Amino acid sequence: MSSQNARAGKQRFLEVAEQLFTEHGYQSVSIRDIAKACKFTNAALYYHFPSKAALYDEVMELHTEHLRTLMQKAAVGDGSTRERISAILSQYALVVADRRSPLFSLRHRRDGISKKAAHKQMKRIFHVILEPLDNVLRQAGERGELRLLPEAYSAASLLMGMLHGMMHHNTACGHGKVSSDDIQLIVELFLAGLETT
Amino acid sequence: MSSQNARAGKQRFLEVAEQLFTEHGYQSVSIRDIAKACKFTNAALYYHFPSKAALYDEVMELHTEHLRTLMQKAAVGDGSTRERISAILSQYALVVADRRSPLFSLRHRRDGISKKAAHKQMKRIFHVILEPLDNVLRQAGERGELRLLPEAYSAASLLMGMLHGMMHHNTACGHGKVSSDDIQLIVELFLAGLETT
Repeated sequence: MSSQNARAGKQRFLEVAEQLFTEHGYQSVSIRDIAKACKFTNAALYYHFPSKAALYDEVMELHTEHLRTLMQKAAVGDGSTRERISAILSQYALVVADRRSPLFSLRHRRDGISKKAAHKQMKRIFHVILEPLDNVLRQAGERGELRLLPEAYSAASLLMGMLHGMMHHNTACGHGKVSSDDIQLIVELFLAGLETT
Repeated sequence: MSSQNARAGKQRFLEVAEQLFTEHGYQSVSIRDIAKACKFTNAALYYHFPSKAALYDEVMELHTEHLRTLMQKAAVGDGSTRERISAILSQYALVVADRRSPLFSLRHRRDGISKKAAHKQMKRIFHVILEPLDNVLRQAGERGELRLLPEAYSAASLLMGMLHGMMHHNTACGHGKVSSDDIQLIVELFLAGLETT
């Protein structure tokens, strides 16, 4: 197999696996199903992925990296800290609100994946996705604009938690997606606090 | 059936249903299984609950009300707003960290419940659980201690989101439960903001 063919084959396996996992759930899909749908042998698939679990991991990894890249791009520019944080949150909300994103749809179809593997993957996604926000907050902290929290804490995880709290609230109240006004309010509250001064 | 017997019977159905749903999942357990385990007829069960879905709803409702009561009790007293908010969050974290609480364990075993019913229940749990925190924040807002957010927003849902962000962070970093230091930090950040002043 030429290396170009190998790359094309690998890409095809990832796309088809993602589609089948999304449609039928991780547990119901076999290596054989994926190879067959790609018109390849099982051996060709095993050439790239040691197991179905490894293939699933790589599908998730691709989408995690894609989301990180989108968030990093959103944060670039010479806007204020407030603007850069808002841009990252908006980008994140856009992807999360899109229920078709495999990062979210696949998580609900992962019966059959070991708890340990699921935890490891959750941990990885969590760290990667928080990174762009962590960077902006840390840089602003180093410039003295923001407080730096003690080492054990992640300000990004708290801010992202607020965004999820807002999303749950919007879902519960039936008025859907997070708007840019919603994001302005979260960022304002996170930076200035709720206390009157 | 005397009304005392009826109450005792109802209580017994709820306990057994909870136990069976938790062990086997909602979908795998039938009305017949529950009645049989209670040594009652199906008809006796239908006397109290029109359907299995109604029985499940009532199990969840009981635990939701129990958590609200615990949070309300935690908020009572003449402590400062900061202390009352911290007490509510601590109580919530205690129940959520206990994975045996049916409010959380049952949510992962609810295959077979319609999306519409699950959404309605989620909405109800969300509102009930936020109420004690909403009350404290609104009272402090009316006294001018805190800003009041526009009508469409819920400060409680944002603060609860921060707590969940912290919990996810702690889980991802493998150092487990939320400590009282963690809660102090969240409350401080929520009230005073991250910006240096």
